[in-house]
Amino acid sequence: MIYFLVFGGISIFYILLLTFKILDYPSGNEKTTELSSIIQTGAKSFLFQEYKIFFPVVIVISLLISTTFNFEAGVALIIGSLFSVLSGYIGMSIATKANARTAWAATKNMGEALKVSFSGGAIMGLTVSTLGIIGLSITYYLTNNITLISFYSLGASLVALFARVGGGIYTKAADVGADIVGKTEANLPEDDPRNPAVIADNVGDNVGDVAGMGADLYESYVGSIFSALALGTFYYKEAGFTSVIFITIFGLISSILGITFTLLKSKDSTNPAKTLRAGTIFASILTLLLTLVYSIYISWISIFFVVFSGITVGVLIGLVTEWYTSGKKIIKLAKTATMGPANVIISGTALGMESTFIITTFISLAVILSYKLLGLFGVALSGVGMLSTIGISLSVDAYGPIADNAGGIAQMAGLDPQVRNITDALDAVGNTTAAMGKGFAIGSAALTALALFSNFSNIADSDSVLITNPYLFLGGLIGAMLPFFFSALTMHAVGNAADEMVNEIRRQLKEIPGILTGQNKPDYQKCIQIATKGALKRMVVPSLLAVFSPVIIYFLFGTTGIAGLLIGATVSGVMLAIFMANSGGAWDNAKKYIEEGHFGGKGSLAHKATVVGDTVGDPYKDTSGPSINILIKLMAITSIVLITVIRGL
Amino acid sequence: MIYFLVFGGISIFYILLLTFKILDYPSGNEKTTELSSIIQTGAKSFLFQEYKIFFPVVIVISLLISTTFNFEAGVALIIGSLFSVLSGYIGMSIATKANARTAWAATKNMGEALKVSFSGGAIMGLTVSTLGIIGLSITYYLTNNITLISFYSLGASLVALFARVGGGIYTKAADVGADIVGKTEANLPEDDPRNPAVIADNVGDNVGDVAGMGADLYESYVGSIFSALALGTFYYKEAGFTSVIFITIFGLISSILGITFTLLKSKDSTNPAKTLRAGTIFASILTLLLTLVYSIYISWISIFFVVFSGITVGVLIGLVTEWYTSGKKIIKLAKTATMGPANVIISGTALGMESTFIITTFISLAVILSYKLLGLFGVALSGVGMLSTIGISLSVDAYGPIADNAGGIAQMAGLDPQVRNITDALDAVGNTTAAMGKGFAIGSAALTALALFSNFSNIADSDSVLITNPYLFLGGLIGAMLPFFFSALTMHAVGNAADEMVNEIRRQLKEIPGILTGQNKPDYQKCIQIATKGALKRMVVPSLLAVFSPVIIYFLFGTTGIAGLLIGATVSGVMLAIFMANSGGAWDNAKKYIEEGHFGGKGSLAHKATVVGDTVGDPYKDTSGPSINILIKLMAITSIVLITVIRGL
Repeated sequence: MIYFLVFGGISIFYILLLTFKILDYPSGNEKTTELSSIIQTGAKSFLFQEYKIFFPVVIVISLLISTTFNFEAGVALIIGSLFSVLSGYIGMSIATKANARTAWAATKNMGEALKVSFSGGAIMGLTVSTLGIIGLSITYYLTNNITLISFYSLGASLVALFARVGGGIYTKAADVGADIVGKTEANLPEDDPRNPAVIADNVGDNVGDVAGMGADLYESYVGSIFSALALGTFYYKEAGFTSVIFITIFGLISSILGITFTLLKSKDSTNPAKTLRAGTIFASILTLLLTLVYSIYISWISIFFVVFSGITVGVLIGLVTEWYTSGKKIIKLAKTATMGPANVIISGTALGMESTFIITTFISLAVILSYKLLGLFGVALSGVGMLSTIGISLSVDAYGPIADNAGGIAQMAGLDPQVRNITDALDAVGNTTAAMGKGFAIGSAALTALALFSNFSNIADSDSVLITNPYLFLGGLIGAMLPFFFSALTMHAVGNAADEMVNEIRRQLKEIPGILTGQNKPDYQKCIQIATKGALKRMVVPSLLAVFSPVIIYFLFGTTGIAGLLIGATVSGVMLAIFMANSGGAWDNAKKYIEEGHFGGKGSLAHKATVVGDTVGDPYKDTSGPSINILIKLMAITSIVLITVIRGL
Repeated sequence: MIYFLVFGGISIFYILLLTFKILDYPSGNEKTTELSSIIQTGAKSFLFQEYKIFFPVVIVISLLISTTFNFEAGVALIIGSLFSVLSGYIGMSIATKANARTAWAATKNMGEALKVSFSGGAIMGLTVSTLGIIGLSITYYLTNNITLISFYSLGASLVALFARVGGGIYTKAADVGADIVGKTEANLPEDDPRNPAVIADNVGDNVGDVAGMGADLYESYVGSIFSALALGTFYYKEAGFTSVIFITIFGLISSILGITFTLLKSKDSTNPAKTLRAGTIFASILTLLLTLVYSIYISWISIFFVVFSGITVGVLIGLVTEWYTSGKKIIKLAKTATMGPANVIISGTALGMESTFIITTFISLAVILSYKLLGLFGVALSGVGMLSTIGISLSVDAYGPIADNAGGIAQMAGLDPQVRNITDALDAVGNTTAAMGKGFAIGSAALTALALFSNFSNIADSDSVLITNPYLFLGGLIGAMLPFFFSALTMHAVGNAADEMVNEIRRQLKEIPGILTGQNKPDYQKCIQIATKGALKRMVVPSLLAVFSPVIIYFLFGTTGIAGLLIGATVSGVMLAIFMANSGGAWDNAKKYIEEGHFGGKGSLAHKATVVGDTVGDPYKDTSGPSINILIKLMAITSIVLITVIRGL
């Protein structure tokens, strides 16, 4: 595990280099700098207020564990949450600095803007993977016990829960609120500085899509590595353990080289989508090559095939997501919009539900292959393979909101329309990468949950779990209900928080004269505060549900009940998340397709129908859907920790 | 089991009596008689064409089973499908005769109309329960083997599949098609005879809500009795077996008396909802009393508590459904409609998803109690308890479409507006009972699936199913995907079939002059044919999926895979079905609430928004949602049959 520290150190060096390069870049004129700084302050203020709720919870849980079970376990929990918080904070800070710089770079050319925005995303991607393994190895050296890494993983999960749910509610409440009053009632264009919620909307992109997504993948990354380490050691001793370490490092190295490759290529890039894809594929192939060499060297070729299955399924899920949210499928969906909003909702719902079929098939194939080759360890290792290149895949993902923010800043600062064209082009690519990123996040959550479940079933006394015990089925029923109930809570939360935002925007437009004429500035801070408070307040109930349901089920139905609960929650949660993400993505893109002038273009009935679809899709794809990822992983890790605590070490 | 034949015979006598009474009733003037006869011909023609597809399939499967496994098993399959088909056919025939008679009775008063329509529904309710147990006992005497009753149950499941999926597509394609062109484009009111699809719409109510629902509950009834008989005999020998028989008969007797009670009460009824509720509660309490006496007599008081839990959970699910689809919840939903269609879709979706929580809790409580008292037999017996009074609960359910049809006939035949007021009042009650019936159908499907699963786990070599085998999880993942994919298929089917209908209506309005002025009659038959063909064609793929997926999974993943598949499909299917049924019901009633004049009334923006919600809800609640019930039960019974065939008797 010393390799984690060595290569983690190298990666930190690279991150610092990249950070200085970004900071060296001019942040533009006074206006862009000021806007960027307002967004940054808003985003940081949200995080700090989130921490105020979050840390007391973590400290209480940690104290409880330290005093009643094991001191090191409590410390591991703290380390897990601290390192995840830290990586989210660093990544988001840089992202909110990169936005204005991207806007300014766009005054030069597309390649320059791509370079700056991708650099910003790369900080997030690399920080997550680097701090993920450094924290893990510190925990390992401190506790000297693989089992206790589960507490580190639990810490990361708790951060992810708060970041995803809180960030998801924030981003959509601001977005929907800004749209309802701004676009519909006051007839303002997108990102217009006269809209009081415009900054809150930009802050939302950062706290939701950067910090939230980062914490989500941090959790998956750490959870899958932990599972693979534990199962690898259990079934294959030293060889299993070492392989996991090496594959993780291959992925990290490949990500760094892939990022460098992308940055070199992006300078003269005219096709950002192609450049980003080339970098990702480069990193994936490099990881596979390194794994191949390694597996031949240690004469354990199965390792290669398992990692191959994981990486391939990650890529395939991305492609399926793209297939369902672009091209022919979208044109067909846009066509149904000509018949009205109900038709576009039904067709989009059917589309999202249909997409579960292929994705499930791919995941199943990867699991079958991995299990046939290496048993339960294979299942976990395939997850590690899929997540190994998270350094670059999360970079591509985090680049999107930076480009989106840059566009907003360009618009608000009144930069040349040509600048906006460039940022729009980058943003469009960002939308596709965001949709693919969501697919990847769900797929990785599914594999991580399966890996954690394998770990759980290995720890739990599996003989005591029989299918003739109906508590397995009943646990499954309750588990399957949770993602639905959880989604209802988060959807209600977005709706209510958006209502508060709408009222505030209306109040400002009414009470502060001269906002619409541009003579007076609206009170941006007030809107940011409302989104922050609204999100944090409504984050608590769903979070408690996720943390305590396994505990309650254990005391009601024992180990069998928990096994059922995990299976039920994961399988129904994954389907619901895929459905919501892809329906949402498809509606979003169908709207954009019509806005390009098809089927009557902007303002037509078809356009209005797709606006309805897009609005419905917003909480689907950006709040409820992604929150389910966390729910299922958190329940799995909580169950492992619970069983560990109850059975003792 | 001789009691089944004796009391079945008594019940048949009562059914005949009721039938003659209905047929004796005048079917009105020439116009109402003609309309009723067109609807009847259309509905029968659909059923016969469905049989043409269905019987070859059943005969092939039956021959396969007879020749390769066991002759009697093949015969049992045929009996199961024949008896289910027969009860659907009889029930629907009378329902389509009762519609005009109800319209005519409404020219007198509300009580008379209630009596006739409820009598029509009662034929369906009693035929299903009576033929269900008569067929079951014939099968038992023929095979002399409880295990082979599973083949009888499979036969019933296959009928249910075709009836529910085909009927569900038919009814919504006709409904949506008629609404889109008729109401929106040609500005015709509901049930206007100038709308070419108006008769097809009325036919749809019968094939979907009468025949489809009947086959669905027939399957649940037979499946739960079979499971309870098998598990009862396995764990408690003769005592278990006899108890199941007695409780079933108590339910049948209570239903007959409850129906008589309702009919006596309905004559002077001014509040149909109250009268119907009184009858149902009467039957439930009577069943409980008889069971209490019986269980004291045989000194086995647990029996009573288990049946009590089943009946209570059935009633509670109905109440929860009512709570989520009426009153305060609906007013709140209607209020969000003032903000536009997107808001009403999001709120309605959240409402449906939220409703899974309480229903799951109630089902869980019933299962826990039953399992604690009587083990796996208790779980199955609780399902029998819930379904024991199906005779009256299905009667209440089937009464709805008859009242609905009566309203349509009154409108088309130009009867006095006062008549329409009465049928509207009956129809409104029918909508509520339909929503509650859907909840009951889902709840009973869940309990039946659990009972069948208990049976499956008892037959399967349960030691070989370990949670450390990831095929359990993987089977669960694939199982959970199926209801989503299945729903996508059925939603697409409705959309495409509705498109065909829309084109035909447009063609007729264009090519046949004088339809809109009422000078010429539209070609009703053509629309009926299109709906029939459209539904039957699109029924095949989803049906194959349901039948063959357990077989494929068995050969890929063995018993463990099937166990996972059944758990995954049931738990995610139940949640999806509850969500779809309650969201759909809530949108429907929110629309009606606004149409009563709230939030701007008909024609307001809020009304338009709820029309969007209602249209989305149509395939949710009437096609995709109900079809899931069948999917999960059919997969369970297929798995049992498969394991039986493979392991031998």
